[in-house]
Amino acid sequence: MTLRQVLVANRGEIAVRVVRACADEGLRSVVAVSEADRESRAALVADRAVCIGPASATDSYLDIGRVVAAALGTGCDAVHPGYGFLAERPELAEACAEHGLVFVGPPADAIRRGGDKAVARELAESLGIPVGEGSDTLADAVQARAVADGIGYPVVLKAAAGGGGRGMVRVDSGEQLSEAFGRATHEAQQAFGDGRMYLERFITRARHVEVQVLADHHGGIVHLGERDCSTQRRYQKLIEEAPARAVPEEIRRDLCAAAVELCRALDYVGAGTVEFVVDVDRGIWSFLEVNTRVQVEHPVTEMVTGIDIVRAQLAIAGGDRLPVRQSDVVLRGHAVEVRVNAEDPRQDFAPVPGLVSRWVEPVGGGLRIDTHVFGGYRIPPHYDSLLAKVIAHGPDREAALDRLDRGLAHLVIEGVPTTAELLRAVLGAEEFRAERHHTRWIEQEFLPEWRGAPAA
Amino acid sequence: MTLRQVLVANRGEIAVRVVRACADEGLRSVVAVSEADRESRAALVADRAVCIGPASATDSYLDIGRVVAAALGTGCDAVHPGYGFLAERPELAEACAEHGLVFVGPPADAIRRGGDKAVARELAESLGIPVGEGSDTLADAVQARAVADGIGYPVVLKAAAGGGGRGMVRVDSGEQLSEAFGRATHEAQQAFGDGRMYLERFITRARHVEVQVLADHHGGIVHLGERDCSTQRRYQKLIEEAPARAVPEEIRRDLCAAAVELCRALDYVGAGTVEFVVDVDRGIWSFLEVNTRVQVEHPVTEMVTGIDIVRAQLAIAGGDRLPVRQSDVVLRGHAVEVRVNAEDPRQDFAPVPGLVSRWVEPVGGGLRIDTHVFGGYRIPPHYDSLLAKVIAHGPDREAALDRLDRGLAHLVIEGVPTTAELLRAVLGAEEFRAERHHTRWIEQEFLPEWRGAPAA
Repeated sequence: MTLRQVLVANRGEIAVRVVRACADEGLRSVVAVSEADRESRAALVADRAVCIGPASATDSYLDIGRVVAAALGTGCDAVHPGYGFLAERPELAEACAEHGLVFVGPPADAIRRGGDKAVARELAESLGIPVGEGSDTLADAVQARAVADGIGYPVVLKAAAGGGGRGMVRVDSGEQLSEAFGRATHEAQQAFGDGRMYLERFITRARHVEVQVLADHHGGIVHLGERDCSTQRRYQKLIEEAPARAVPEEIRRDLCAAAVELCRALDYVGAGTVEFVVDVDRGIWSFLEVNTRVQVEHPVTEMVTGIDIVRAQLAIAGGDRLPVRQSDVVLRGHAVEVRVNAEDPRQDFAPVPGLVSRWVEPVGGGLRIDTHVFGGYRIPPHYDSLLAKVIAHGPDREAALDRLDRGLAHLVIEGVPTTAELLRAVLGAEEFRAERHHTRWIEQEFLPEWRGAPAA
Repeated sequence: MTLRQVLVANRGEIAVRVVRACADEGLRSVVAVSEADRESRAALVADRAVCIGPASATDSYLDIGRVVAAALGTGCDAVHPGYGFLAERPELAEACAEHGLVFVGPPADAIRRGGDKAVARELAESLGIPVGEGSDTLADAVQARAVADGIGYPVVLKAAAGGGGRGMVRVDSGEQLSEAFGRATHEAQQAFGDGRMYLERFITRARHVEVQVLADHHGGIVHLGERDCSTQRRYQKLIEEAPARAVPEEIRRDLCAAAVELCRALDYVGAGTVEFVVDVDRGIWSFLEVNTRVQVEHPVTEMVTGIDIVRAQLAIAGGDRLPVRQSDVVLRGHAVEVRVNAEDPRQDFAPVPGLVSRWVEPVGGGLRIDTHVFGGYRIPPHYDSLLAKVIAHGPDREAALDRLDRGLAHLVIEGVPTTAELLRAVLGAEEFRAERHHTRWIEQEFLPEWRGAPAA
C-alpha cells in the first residue's frame, strides 16, 4: 500500500517539518489548521490547508472527530499527528483505523501500553531492564510513605499517565509525603484526567539519555543511537545532543539494546523513543518512559545518521520495509540542537506572543533551522512558545557547539524577546562545555549566576 | 598562507552566499555595503558590515579605492568580489596585490587576457579550439561588410570588451551593416568604454553551454562538467541546468577538454567558466567567451558534483591545493536553477522595487534557495532585480523540474510582482520539457504565446 496524501494534524515547526517530509516522499500534504493558524507557514507551504476549528486547541488540534473528518473531507489517506496534541492518544489511531485512514504512528495498543508509565515499567522489568528503585502504582499516601521509607529520601512522585514533567513532585522527607501525594495526585488528575501515582528514587546528578528506534510492519527494528537531553529547565529540554558522548560507551550500548528489546515486546511500529536516566555518580541507569511519536529533538539524530526520521515514518506507514539494517546505521560527528522560544528569560521565562517584525536566518553548511516563523508572522497566544530549533553538526562536539553559537549569533529576531542569548550563554558555560552538567544544573547552578550577571 | 577574514565586496544573494562560504571555511566575513544596503541580509548575517559609500554603485560597489580601503580598515586579508561590479576588473586584483590583500579570483593578467573577447578568441584559435565563423577586431564598417559577405547572413556584431548581451546587434543583410556597425560601436563605447567590434555567423538554433573550471596555485586544474544555459531572454539567462543533457556526450567531452586547455593557457587560478555555443542544427560548437569569476548559476554544478565552488575559491586563494582530482569529479542526477526577479513580465519585465511584505520559502530535500530577501525587506531601486535563485536537484531532469515547479509554487512573495509564475509556465512548456528550446526560444516562441494567454 502506498500513501498519496497526508493530513498534517499539527501546527508550528513540526507541521512544516512533516509537509517537507511529504514533499520529499512525493506525497501531497493537507495541513489542518485552527482559525489562529490560517496564515501559518505550514498552511502557506502545504499543498492545501483546511480549517478544523477555533484557536482553542480543545476544539481543533485536540478534537479527534474534527481531525478525522478533515482527513476524510479532503481525500487524505493518512494522518500524521506530529508531537504533542493527539500524537500519543490511542483513540486517534483507532479512529483512523475505523475510517480506513493510515495513522502515521504505532498501533493503538503499542501507544496504550508504551504510554502508560506503570505498564511500560512493568514490561521493562519483565524483560530484565532496570527500572530504578521505585514503586508500582501507589494505592494511597500511606503506601507511598512505606515505599519511600524503604528506598530512602529524596524520592520523586510521578504521574502514571504523565510526561514532560507535569505531575512530578520531589519529596525530601517522610513528613512531606502525605501533603505532596495529595498535591501531585490533584495535578495529575487535572493534567491527564488520571491521578494514579508512582514514585522513584530521586537522583542528584542525573543525565537524561534516550534512544531513537525505528520499526516496520515486517518485524524489522533498528535503533539510531542515543541522544543526551540533560540540559533541562523544569523538566523541559533546552538543548539536545547526539551522540551522548559523556555517557560511557558500554552503558550507551546497553541502553540501545534495551530500547530495541522493549519496542519489540510492545510490537512497536514506526518511530519511537525510549528514555532512560543515567545516575552519573553511581554509574547506573534505569528505564524512564516510552514516547510513542517523533520527538522535538529528532534532527540531531538525523544529522549524525543521515537518516530522515519523518520520511521513514511515512514510508513505514505506507508499508515499506526499514530503509536500513542495524549495521548500516553509522554515526558521523556530533550534532546539537537548541530550542529558541518566544519567552523572556529575565521575566521567569514568561511566554511573549506578538508580531515577529524581523526574521533573518543564519546561513552556513552544517546548520539547520526548523521553524514555522517568517518576517511579519504574528505568534498566536494560544499555543507553545517554540520559535525555532537551531541545529548544528560538526566533526566533534566542540565544532558543533561553535557552529551553533555562530548560528544563534546570526539569527536576527525582532519584535519579541527570545531565549537565544540565554542559550548562547549556556553553550559557552564551562560546566556545559566540559559536560559536567546534569538535568538540574540549569536551575540549580546556571540560572542563579546568569540572573546575577548584567544583561548583555 | 591561510586566510582569516574576508571582505565581501558585493551585495544581494551572492554576498550572502560568500558570507556562508566564509563561515563554512571558518573565516570571518566583513561585508562592504552601500548606504542603501546597510540593513541587507548579508549585513545582518556577516560578522561585520562596513559602509563604503552612497547607494550609487559608481561611488560604492564599483569604486576600487573604497573597496580596498574598507578591506584594510577592517583588518581583512582577502577580498571576494562575487560576480558583476568589480569581479572582472583586473585593476581590483592589482590594487589588492599592491596592498598585501589576497584577491579571491584569478591573477590580473588572466582576467585581462580572458576577459578581452578578441584576445581570448585568438588564444583559443591558437590552441585549435573552434571559434566559429567570425572576424578579428574590425577596423570599420567597410571591413565588417567584406567579412560578413564572406560568412553569409545573418551575422551578429559583438563588442570586443562586452558581455551579457550588451553591444550585440544582429544583421540580416549587407545593406543593414553600415548603420548597425555605427549603432553597435556607440553602444559598446557607452557600456564598456571600448567601441571595438567583431562579428560572427548568427546561429538560428543555438544552445549556450558552459564549463566550470577550478584551478589552484600549484598547477592543479579540473573541470566540474558543463551547464546548459539556453533558456534566455535578451541574452540574459533565466534557467540553467547541469548537466547539458541535450548536447551529445562527445561534444560535452570536447567542451570540457577545451575549457581546461584554455584556462591552462591563461595560467588561470580560482573558479572560472568557459562559454560555448552549440549549433544544434549542424552539430558543431565554438568558443564564446571566458568569465573570470563565479557565475550566478554555480549552484547547479554544486548540486550535481557535491563540490562547494565558493568554498573552493576561498581555499584556493588561501593557497590550498584543489579539493579533488578530475577522477573524483562525479556527476549525480540533474539540477535546474531559475532566477526569480522582481519584475513584471506583463509590463515588458519592468523592474519593480519596493517592500517585500511577505516572504515564505518552500521546504523540502533537494531544494535550495539562494537569496538576500526576507519578510519586510525593501528592494532598493539602485541595483538589479534578482530576488532569489531557486535550485532543485533530482535523480533525473524530469524529477528536478517537478521539484523545482513545486518549490516555485510554494515560494510565497507578497508586495512586488515577480517572474515566478512565468518561470513555472516555462518549466511546464512542452518545448522546454522535450529540450527542443534554444537561446531565442523564449522571445521568439514562448513569450508571444504566453502573453496571449489569459493571466493565471
